[in-house]
Amino acid sequence: MTLVSLIEFEAASPEVRAVYDDIKATRKTEFVNNFWKALANDPPMLRRVWTSVKEVMAPGALDPLVKELVYIAVSVTNNCEYCIHSHAAGATAKGMTPKMFDELLAVVALANETNRLANGYRIDVDERFRLPLGPR
Amino acid sequence: MTLVSLIEFEAASPEVRAVYDDIKATRKTEFVNNFWKALANDPPMLRRVWTSVKEVMAPGALDPLVKELVYIAVSVTNNCEYCIHSHAAGATAKGMTPKMFDELLAVVALANETNRLANGYRIDVDERFRLPLGPR
Amino acid sequence: MTLVSLIEFEAASPEVRAVYDDIKATRKTEFVNNFWKALANDPPMLRRVWTSVKEVMAPGALDPLVKELVYIAVSVTNNCEYCIHSHAAGATAKGMTPKMFDELLAVVALANETNRLANGYRIDVDERFRLPLGPR
Amino acid sequence: MTLVSLIEFEAASPEVRAVYDDIKATRKTEFVNNFWKALANDPPMLRRVWTSVKEVMAPGALDPLVKELVYIAVSVTNNCEYCIHSHAAGATAKGMTPKMFDELLAVVALANETNRLANGYRIDVDERFRLPLGPR
Amino acid sequence: MTLVSLIEFEAASPEVRAVYDDIKATRKTEFVNNFWKALANDPPMLRRVWTSVKEVMAPGALDPLVKELVYIAVSVTNNCEYCIHSHAAGATAKGMTPKMFDELLAVVALANETNRLANGYRIDVDERFRLPLGPR
Amino acid sequence: MTLVSLIEFEAASPEVRAVYDDIKATRKTEFVNNFWKALANDPPMLRRVWTSVKEVMAPGALDPLVKELVYIAVSVTNNCEYCIHSHAAGATAKGMTPKMFDELLAVVALANETNRLANGYRIDVDERFRLPLGPR
Repeated sequence: MTLVSLIEFEAASPEVRAVYDDIKATRKTEFVNNFWKALANDPPMLRRVWTSVKEVMAPGALDPLVKELVYIAVSVTNNCEYCIHSHAAGATAKGMTPKMFDELLAVVALANETNRLANGYRIDVDERFRLPLGPR
Repeated sequence: MTLVSLIEFEAASPEVRAVYDDIKATRKTEFVNNFWKALANDPPMLRRVWTSVKEVMAPGALDPLVKELVYIAVSVTNNCEYCIHSHAAGATAKGMTPKMFDELLAVVALANETNRLANGYRIDVDERFRLPLGPR
Repeated sequence: MTLVSLIEFEAASPEVRAVYDDIKATRKTEFVNNFWKALANDPPMLRRVWTSVKEVMAPGALDPLVKELVYIAVSVTNNCEYCIHSHAAGATAKGMTPKMFDELLAVVALANETNRLANGYRIDVDERFRLPLGPR
Repeated sequence: MTLVSLIEFEAASPEVRAVYDDIKATRKTEFVNNFWKALANDPPMLRRVWTSVKEVMAPGALDPLVKELVYIAVSVTNNCEYCIHSHAAGATAKGMTPKMFDELLAVVALANETNRLANGYRIDVDERFRLPLGPR
Repeated sequence: MTLVSLIEFEAASPEVRAVYDDIKATRKTEFVNNFWKALANDPPMLRRVWTSVKEVMAPGALDPLVKELVYIAVSVTNNCEYCIHSHAAGATAKGMTPKMFDELLAVVALANETNRLANGYRIDVDERFRLPLGPR
Repeated sequence: MTLVSLIEFEAASPEVRAVYDDIKATRKTEFVNNFWKALANDPPMLRRVWTSVKEVMAPGALDPLVKELVYIAVSVTNNCEYCIHSHAAGATAKGMTPKMFDELLAVVALANETNRLANGYRIDVDERFRLPLGPR
C-alpha cells in the first residue's frame, strides 16, 4: 500500500506537468508510471530523479538494454518489487527475451552466492587484480 | 586476512588439480586466482561452484561481457571487495573500457537510489507491469 | 501472512501483560501494535526487545523525532514493510510532516546511491577523515 | 585500493574545476575530498552527483545535521567504510557530539534488529498504520 | 505475482520431469513446490540449482536441521518471503519446534544489530581472532 | 581504523568494569575483546548489548554452537568483517571444525543465491507453506 497519493496529470502543477511531458516525449509513450506519480508529491525530487534517470539510462558506452539488465540485477539483489516489475517491462520493451531474463537471474544469483564465499573466507585480493582502471 | 590457507597446485589433490586444469583450459591462462585456491579446501565445493560459474558465465542469450557487468553490479551492491576487483579484471579482459565501468557504476548507484524511493513510498506496481514473461 | 499468532491482552500471561501495560503507559495509548503481539509468543524476547526499544528511543542527546527518522532510514534501506509503516506512523505522531518524510527519503536514496559509488570505485578514505571521535 | 586515479585540481578540465570550485564555495573550505576526485574521471557523473548532494543536503524541512545523521545511518547499514568516515567528519563539523554518534548507532543497530524480527515473523501491518501521508 | 508460469509435471519436458522425480525421491514426497516449477522454465538452471541444493543440504559435518536453520537465518536477513515460508516448513518437517524458531530469530536479529555496531564503530579485529582455520 | 578509543579495564568506570567482569565470568576467560571495549564508550549501551548477547546466546532450545553458526551466517551475509572473525573464533571454541565452517559457508552462499531466484521470479508462496507455527 503506497504511503503517498499518486498525482495524476490533471491535478498536477505546471512544474510537475513539464516533467511528465518530458517523460512522455523521451519514452515516446502516453504512459507515466506510478513511480513518477508518487515522486510528484515533491516536485524538486521528481525533477532531480527524472533528470538523473534520463541522463544515466541514455545510450552511451553501454547500450540501453544492458543498462536495464543491470538495473534489474540491482533491484533483484535488493528485492525491490516495484523496480523488478517496472524494469522487467522496460527491458522487455527494449528487446529482452524471457531467455535473457533467465540468464540474467542466473548470473545475479551466482554473484550473490560467490560474494558470500569470498567475504566469508575473507579471501585476499590477488596482486594482479589490484590495478586501477586506465584513463578515460 | 583470509580465514583459509590457499591451496597451490603443487599441494593439491588430484581432484583439485583436475578443476584447476579445467579453469586454466576454459580461461586459456595459466593463472588460477585466490578464490579457487580458497575453495579448494573443500574439494566438492570447489568442483560445484566452478561447474556453476563455467555454465552460467558461458555465452548464451547474453554475451559474456554483459554477464561480467552484471556480476560487478551485484558485487558493488553487496560490497564484495574481492569480487569487484576480480570481475573488474575479468570484464576488462573481455573488453570493458574504463568508460563502460563508469556508466555501469552510474546505473548501479541510480538503481540503489530509486529502489529505496520505490520501497520507501511503498509504491503499488502498475497494472500493466504485472504481466508474466512469455514462454521460452 | 504472519508466521505466528498474535497474542491479545486477554489471552496473555501475567509476564506478557506487564510488558503490554508498560508499553501503554510509556506511549500514553491503549494501543499495542502487532509487533509486540507477535513477540509475545516468546515472553523473554518480548521483554528484552521492549526494554531495548524503550531505552534506545528515549530522549537523549538525540531527540525522539530524530530517532524515529533514523529508524525509518534503516527500515527503508532494508525494505522492512512493517517497520516503514509503523515508524512512519510513530514519526508522524512525534511531528514529522509529509514534507519531512520526502526529504528523509531523498537523503536515504542519495546515501544508498553514493554508498555504491564509494564502494564500487574502492575510494580510499582521506587521511583527515581517519580521526577517532573524541571522548564522551 | 581505489580502482580509479584521483583527479587533482591542477590536472582537471575546466568542467571539473568548476564543480570543485562550487564544492569549495558551498562548503566554505579549500578541501575537496577523494570521493569527488574519483568521480571526476567521469565529469558528467561528477556534476550530476554533486548537484544532487548539494540540493538534497541543503537545509529544508530537515536541518543539515539531521540529514548527516541519516546519511550515516544508511552508510552503517550498508557498511560503506568511506561514507561512514566522511559523513562522521561532516556531521561532527555540523555539531554532532560523540554522544550523539553513540545514540545514532544504538538506533541504527536496534532498527536492524527489529527489521529482522518483523520480517522473520512476517508480521501483518496494523490497519491503523496503513494510512497514506497527508498532502504537502 | 510471479513473473513466470509454473511448469506442472504434466506439461514438463522429460528433462524437467527427471528433476521433479529426483526431488520427489530425495524428499520422499509427491509434492514439488513452486520454486522448482518456476525454475523449470530454464531446464539447465533447474537441474543445476537442484543439484547444488541436494548436495549442499545433505547430511555432512552439519546435520540437515542445522542447515535449514542457517537457510532461514540468511533468508530473514535478506527478507526473502518465499524462502522464509518454504524453509520454515522444511525445518519444521525436520524437527524445528516453534520455540527453536523464536530463538533462531532472536539470534538473527541480534547478529544484525551487532554487525552494525561493529561496522559503525569500525572496530579493529583483535589480533587473536586473526587466525586461519586449521587444515581439513 | 576504529572510530572510538578502546576502553581498557584499568581506565574503565565501575559500571564498565562490572560488565567486563561479567563477560569474563560468563565466558570463563580473562580476555575481553575489542567489541566490548568500543561499546564501553557508552556504558548503558555496553550493559544493554551485553545483557542481550548473554541472554540470547545462552543454551536453550538451540545449543550454543548452533547459535554461533547462525551468527556467522548473518555476519557473512552482511559482510561484517569483525563479526566473522570473532564468531569464527567463538564457534571454534565451542567445537566448530574447519569442515563445519566450509559447509556453513556453502549453505549461506546457496541461500543467498536462491533468495535472489525466488525474489527475482517473484514466486508465489505455496498454499501449504502458508501455515503459522504452532503454539509454544
